[in-house]
Amino acid sequence: MAKELKELTKRSVNYSEWYNQLVVKADLAEQSDVRGCMVIKPYGYAIWEKMQRILDDMFKATGVQNAYFPLLIPKSFLSREAEHVEGFAKECAVVTHYRLKTNETHDGVVVDPAAKLEEELIIRPTSETIIWNTYKNWIKSYRDLPILCNQWCNVMRWEMRTRLFLRTSEFLWQEGHTAHATREEAEERAKMMLKVYAEFAEKYMAVPVVQGVKSETERFAGALDTYTIEAMMQDGKALQSGTSHFLGQNFGKAFEVQFLNKDNKPEYAWATSWGVSTRLMGALIMTHSDDNGLVLPPLLAPIQVVIIPIYKNEEQLQQIDEHVKPIQDKLRALGISVKYDNADNKRPGFKFADYELKGVPVRLVIGARDLENGTVEVMRRDTLEKETVQLEGIEAYVKQLLDDMQQNIYQKAVSFRDAHIYECEDYEEFKQKVKDGGFFLCHWDGTEETEARIKEETQATIRCVPFGVEQTPGTDMVSGKPAKYRVIIARAY
Amino acid sequence: MAKELKELTKRSVNYSEWYNQLVVKADLAEQSDVRGCMVIKPYGYAIWEKMQRILDDMFKATGVQNAYFPLLIPKSFLSREAEHVEGFAKECAVVTHYRLKTNETHDGVVVDPAAKLEEELIIRPTSETIIWNTYKNWIKSYRDLPILCNQWCNVMRWEMRTRLFLRTSEFLWQEGHTAHATREEAEERAKMMLKVYAEFAEKYMAVPVVQGVKSETERFAGALDTYTIEAMMQDGKALQSGTSHFLGQNFGKAFEVQFLNKDNKPEYAWATSWGVSTRLMGALIMTHSDDNGLVLPPLLAPIQVVIIPIYKNEEQLQQIDEHVKPIQDKLRALGISVKYDNADNKRPGFKFADYELKGVPVRLVIGARDLENGTVEVMRRDTLEKETVQLEGIEAYVKQLLDDMQQNIYQKAVSFRDAHIYECEDYEEFKQKVKDGGFFLCHWDGTEETEARIKEETQATIRCVPFGVEQTPGTDMVSGKPAKYRVIIARAY
Repeated sequence: MAKELKELTKRSVNYSEWYNQLVVKADLAEQSDVRGCMVIKPYGYAIWEKMQRILDDMFKATGVQNAYFPLLIPKSFLSREAEHVEGFAKECAVVTHYRLKTNETHDGVVVDPAAKLEEELIIRPTSETIIWNTYKNWIKSYRDLPILCNQWCNVMRWEMRTRLFLRTSEFLWQEGHTAHATREEAEERAKMMLKVYAEFAEKYMAVPVVQGVKSETERFAGALDTYTIEAMMQDGKALQSGTSHFLGQNFGKAFEVQFLNKDNKPEYAWATSWGVSTRLMGALIMTHSDDNGLVLPPLLAPIQVVIIPIYKNEEQLQQIDEHVKPIQDKLRALGISVKYDNADNKRPGFKFADYELKGVPVRLVIGARDLENGTVEVMRRDTLEKETVQLEGIEAYVKQLLDDMQQNIYQKAVSFRDAHIYECEDYEEFKQKVKDGGFFLCHWDGTEETEARIKEETQATIRCVPFGVEQTPGTDMVSGKPAKYRVIIARAY
Repeated sequence: MAKELKELTKRSVNYSEWYNQLVVKADLAEQSDVRGCMVIKPYGYAIWEKMQRILDDMFKATGVQNAYFPLLIPKSFLSREAEHVEGFAKECAVVTHYRLKTNETHDGVVVDPAAKLEEELIIRPTSETIIWNTYKNWIKSYRDLPILCNQWCNVMRWEMRTRLFLRTSEFLWQEGHTAHATREEAEERAKMMLKVYAEFAEKYMAVPVVQGVKSETERFAGALDTYTIEAMMQDGKALQSGTSHFLGQNFGKAFEVQFLNKDNKPEYAWATSWGVSTRLMGALIMTHSDDNGLVLPPLLAPIQVVIIPIYKNEEQLQQIDEHVKPIQDKLRALGISVKYDNADNKRPGFKFADYELKGVPVRLVIGARDLENGTVEVMRRDTLEKETVQLEGIEAYVKQLLDDMQQNIYQKAVSFRDAHIYECEDYEEFKQKVKDGGFFLCHWDGTEETEARIKEETQATIRCVPFGVEQTPGTDMVSGKPAKYRVIIARAY
């Protein structure tokens, strides 16, 4: 493993390869033998669980409840909303039969042709259709509204080119689906959930994001507006990290979800949907990690502190063991997760490298001399700085250090991001610079033609019209036409 | 709703119909428009979430970690283990294509014949095959063992006759899959997890269970031993509530999972798997509930206490509102979940019936006279007894009451169960009595023939060879042959 670790490709050599290797070497996930589907390993899943727990609490604090809707969707449901079917039909896993039978040579199984479904079922790529088909029966009056449901589940989109966490055929996510009596309330909810995502990304993942609204081309299939949070990776590319959609009455109409309003008149319900997925794992990894391995924000690290003993013989180890016990207790009493690794079959050097690779935020090393001096060596993963500290009060020291690290990696990511956002007025300059990554704040004339040309010529796309940026009119750098505002253009994952 | 409530069929009239109605009326779940698949509604899902959280903590306390494996399994994987494919091939949802396309009349979508998979994929009915195919790469040495993984996920078994929670084509569950270096360790793990299930059922669900081992006929497809917990419903039928399987080296051999043992010799890994599902919701509902609706054990109730005001005018309501605030705070400080329902558009009588239907354990009612007297009316859902209590110290009173209720419904279920376990030596008597339900402790000669005859003639099955029962040899009541021990025979869900 220590040897393997050295083989981690450097970011500067091949960022993409570095990512692929890191995900596997840090035991986060691996490819399965099922095309495009990943196995999320226990260490990776532990991070995802922490994310889930926090997001779930944040959703519930806004009144959202969890529920569960079927995995399979009748094919005809997809066709009800014209744009929606256009967006998802091309990447659906289709269930056509419900039984296998023994083959003629009795050494395997084949699909039983007698068990063909009357109507094919697709594995949900997203659940608007099946959920709005259900809401039809739940919504009769304005008193039944709003409905604020979320589900944590798996979805399937048949991707041709996949990468662990970033783009897989099956992925885990949450999808919120709300129904409202008024347009204003639905729009407000869509924006509210974007804010929740942004707060989660920045506060817990330590990933700064740009909030904004998508261009029409980049909208979710069936949405009137798609709000997005866009994060910048260390190669300057954008990673769309969460989206929240204002769906208008499109699904209300498609599934005939009408309610009687306060004036006793029928109206179609207004909808939102919003989701984040295991893709967030990719954002987390790529924002902070370095050539030694993962760097995890303390608030999401499954193990926050690892303690490693250095000893010459069994007796010394026993002394250290006894010494470490109260340290563990004190750290745990402060809610800090600690692992004491006194395994005898691995050398300290191996352990150091392994926990660095896995991104454990704080490492405490205790040797014979530390016993004598009442000290401990503390290493912080973000800067790799080491310090020898008095054991007395170590728990408060570590707690403060974890807080500092959470802030530090966030600030580092903010600085990097801000240093790579450019205002740009010249298309030739843009074409040159965009190759090296970064977010480009450019005036856009609002036409699909310009958008398509930029994408074709530079592989960059309009990520969003950013919120919180003072907008002034100008000239589109591509078409030369007048432009009302600037958009963020970048290459993206 | 109050009207609907009255329409809940009585248990004594039609127990099965009572259950079906209750699940829907209490807002726990409903049928979806996808054959055999259910929608778990927010109130039902909140109970399931509580179960998940507690079980997950219990698993982790035994060293288990969560992970995630693919939804889809290559058809050929199933065939690797002969009994396994026999057990599951007949009820598989099969994915044959990965794309839809617009139909010729441009008003719908059809399966794109060009997008046919080379090998069909099945939606997991259980994940032994895909997981052991993965473990092959994780296990090289005895040092890599044990592996203790669990996943919370959805599975699909194409059932012909479905009932909400009890038998649905798609259901939610957890499946643990462990790999071990020795037979002893694997057997111990299989038994350990059965104990975890039994403890969870009895301590949290307040559902007493019989622990035991299945007959060969009733074993999981591919197991050497299947351990089970069997609960008795109010109609005397058994509900298999959780199983834990010792799989021997069957999957180790089928997927060539070999490791080098301490003597550096190759050996096949030993396996267990174990699972509980949303079926537990069925056990919970059917064990405790009554003709008024759900009865929930306080430890799993999403809302433990509901407070309802009785008022004549807006001014009284305001007084009560102010009065209730500190009560809510005090209860919450003790970790009790409280809902104050002062909604103005429903009458108190409607609210009473609705919260009874939903099984909220404790109801507090506060009216104008209570304000004067410093009292509150307390109703407990299990016995429906009402009492007027001093408001001073109400939080301690309620806490004690919740503890008492948890114990009471458990004891009630134990008494019912114990009163319906019969030792039986005579097959004619058995055939008469089994129609009315109950668990029958009968000597069994150990043959499949006897087992099949009982099933055919009485629809009853051998539930298990129970643990913790003093066994003495005897005579099989059906065949008259010698029998080494007694088994539990019952009709089952």
